[in-house]
Amino acid sequence: MPDATARELGEFGLIDHVVARLGTSAAVLLGPGDDAAVVTAPDGRVVATTDVLVEGVHFRRDWSTAYDVGRKAAAANLADVAAMGATATALLVGLAAPGELPVAWATGLADGLRDEAALVGAVVVGGDTVSCDRVVVSVTALGDLAGRPPVTRAGARPGDDVVLAGTTGRSAAGLALLQAGQGAGPLVDAHRRPTPPYALGPALADLGATAMCDVSDGLVQDAGHLAAASGVLLELDSALLPRVDGVDLDAALAGGEDHALVATVAAGTALPAGVVRIGTVRPGSGVSVLGHDPGARSWEHFCRPV
Amino acid sequence: MPDATARELGEFGLIDHVVARLGTSAAVLLGPGDDAAVVTAPDGRVVATTDVLVEGVHFRRDWSTAYDVGRKAAAANLADVAAMGATATALLVGLAAPGELPVAWATGLADGLRDEAALVGAVVVGGDTVSCDRVVVSVTALGDLAGRPPVTRAGARPGDDVVLAGTTGRSAAGLALLQAGQGAGPLVDAHRRPTPPYALGPALADLGATAMCDVSDGLVQDAGHLAAASGVLLELDSALLPRVDGVDLDAALAGGEDHALVATVAAGTALPAGVVRIGTVRPGSGVSVLGHDPGARSWEHFCRPV
Repeated sequence: MPDATARELGEFGLIDHVVARLGTSAAVLLGPGDDAAVVTAPDGRVVATTDVLVEGVHFRRDWSTAYDVGRKAAAANLADVAAMGATATALLVGLAAPGELPVAWATGLADGLRDEAALVGAVVVGGDTVSCDRVVVSVTALGDLAGRPPVTRAGARPGDDVVLAGTTGRSAAGLALLQAGQGAGPLVDAHRRPTPPYALGPALADLGATAMCDVSDGLVQDAGHLAAASGVLLELDSALLPRVDGVDLDAALAGGEDHALVATVAAGTALPAGVVRIGTVRPGSGVSVLGHDPGARSWEHFCRPV
Repeated sequence: MPDATARELGEFGLIDHVVARLGTSAAVLLGPGDDAAVVTAPDGRVVATTDVLVEGVHFRRDWSTAYDVGRKAAAANLADVAAMGATATALLVGLAAPGELPVAWATGLADGLRDEAALVGAVVVGGDTVSCDRVVVSVTALGDLAGRPPVTRAGARPGDDVVLAGTTGRSAAGLALLQAGQGAGPLVDAHRRPTPPYALGPALADLGATAMCDVSDGLVQDAGHLAAASGVLLELDSALLPRVDGVDLDAALAGGEDHALVATVAAGTALPAGVVRIGTVRPGSGVSVLGHDPGARSWEHFCRPV
């Protein structure tokens, strides 16, 4: 019933409809349909993180399909798990939505969550649907460290190299295009559906990364979190940042939601493909950017968070 | 700054303010402040569940304090974990709220979450705050089965006893009093702050419970989920239901949000304090209620879910 609304299907009908589209994996001991899911945690620890996406703040239903929102909501959480050096195993999803929401939107969301999670072998294991006059999608990701120590934001040491896995600024550039009325192209796609470098999180952990952080609020801002937690200065060199067609330096430094990974590693560490050195850890505090005015604007999604 | 708003404090200021109020436990290897938390999963499995509470649907800010909402949001999730036969270890919390939200409301919510979680030894390990014109609280709970098999909804067998841990109908009766303009008393307290029998979930699992389910949507409705998953008829006897002053049979059968636990156990199992036999599992399907019209209304929170 592609034209039905959530209200017409009812809460449990909607859940059945969505659950039927989800897959499973060997890590799922008990999936959707009970009071809670049960997931393996092979090394005796579990990584867990939550992100909330709000219609009008993190996405617009006229700019992104439900499928895109599902991909993006999953990506934000899967990248947080990768930033600890872990691999995500499971997602739980809370959907608050109006009764008028088309069922096709909910199933599109589920498909997007499923397909993004599948990139790392994770599956949706549970969730909740409730009534709300605005669409709010909350996603929790669980992950497996596979015996690794978690890579926190707090271990960067003076002399370490600062490295970047993935690129920044594409989502912000794509948003600017959408705001200017242009609705197609690779940057717009990058805004709708970020492509975090999931596998590089565990890879950097295995290379001895001393600190790591997901870039969700902008490179300078998130590098600042890493600098503050580690008690160091991160000196970035704008000339070393990956160049992307259509992305200016402001967007590369301040644009959020690409979910690249910024990390620190011992100086001279050989880097895997997709990771580049972008600076050096120094004694001090904060973030400096060689070759750029350090007063770069920070990322504010569509409007200022809370 | 008790009079400040969330917007005045900013997202990270608000998070710092809230995190400072939270505790920790031996199960928390890495708490709030990084990309993700790390929690022990001692038996190599983790139980996980998510519930979303929406202002105007699950609570009203003029009827419940922030502290009450925190208690209730935690309780809904902790009870789901208990219904698997597990003990909760950690909560993750997503808060979507307007910028005008008083900081005191957010800290009250955090205090309520902390104190309810403390009843089972769990702590808040992470979360997210985002801007939204309505207050939406999403909570994910993680739990530890301590070597037990999970108690699903699917194992009830004809001949088993149906048992109830805790009581039902108090929250619905309290809501009716609030709707009638009465704002005090034990039933109103039960609506604002349910008191699930957390320890009885693992206790029933240890007694060999064949199926178990949290009563969040009403006894008849949730018993129906258990009956459907198990492929049996649950015959409840209204004369056996715990009597509570001010709670009529309709409320006891259909009222939601008390988070009692309904379970099935081998006939004649000696029951711990707080658990009573309320019926029998029969071959068949659905739920019948001896001594009551089976067309009892179902629980609809304030308005129909999605």
